[in-house]
Amino acid sequence: MQSLFENIPAELPDELFETLVAADRVRIERIVSRGQASPEGFWYDQEENEFVVILQGSAALRMEDEDAPRVMKPGDYVVIPAHARHRVEWSDPSGATIWLAVFYH
Amino acid sequence: MQSLFENIPAELPDELFETLVAADRVRIERIVSRGQASPEGFWYDQEENEFVVILQGSAALRMEDEDAPRVMKPGDYVVIPAHARHRVEWSDPSGATIWLAVFYH
Repeated sequence: MQSLFENIPAELPDELFETLVAADRVRIERIVSRGQASPEGFWYDQEENEFVVILQGSAALRMEDEDAPRVMKPGDYVVIPAHARHRVEWSDPSGATIWLAVFYH
Repeated sequence: MQSLFENIPAELPDELFETLVAADRVRIERIVSRGQASPEGFWYDQEENEFVVILQGSAALRMEDEDAPRVMKPGDYVVIPAHARHRVEWSDPSGATIWLAVFYH
């Protein structure tokens, strides 16, 4: 048995992406941020749908077709359809933000 | 945006199962327990693989091929292969236990 809250590096130059499950049509990842944001002008544009929830920390998720970012706290989740362009405006600079993401077709 | 920690009924005669995502090969559910356990002698035997994590509360997950149950706390996750028989021995009787489950082929 493993924990999503353990093995969090004390420092992270980049966001940490770990694949927990990889199957034909689904991939489950833990993502850990420590203050990172998407690069200026960068938008994720994915082939897969994504269900993403924050488990610890906080972050602001910006959808291209929305004026304001969604500020997410633990328990908040969003379903991002394939090709819905989005970016992370900021993540909590004071500690680890832990995301669980399920990518699926 | 919705939260996995909101809209928790104060009383639950039975466990609450809510489907958050239903796609061809993946289903994401929030499950809320308030002290429930699997019925005596009952084993889940599923066609799908399951990734399950506890987000709040605690519970004991028993795999048929293991002697002792796995006592799970928030952040703990387990991957249960299809047809691996399992049951919930107990869930925290003092409050809501919140699970996030991803079923996939």
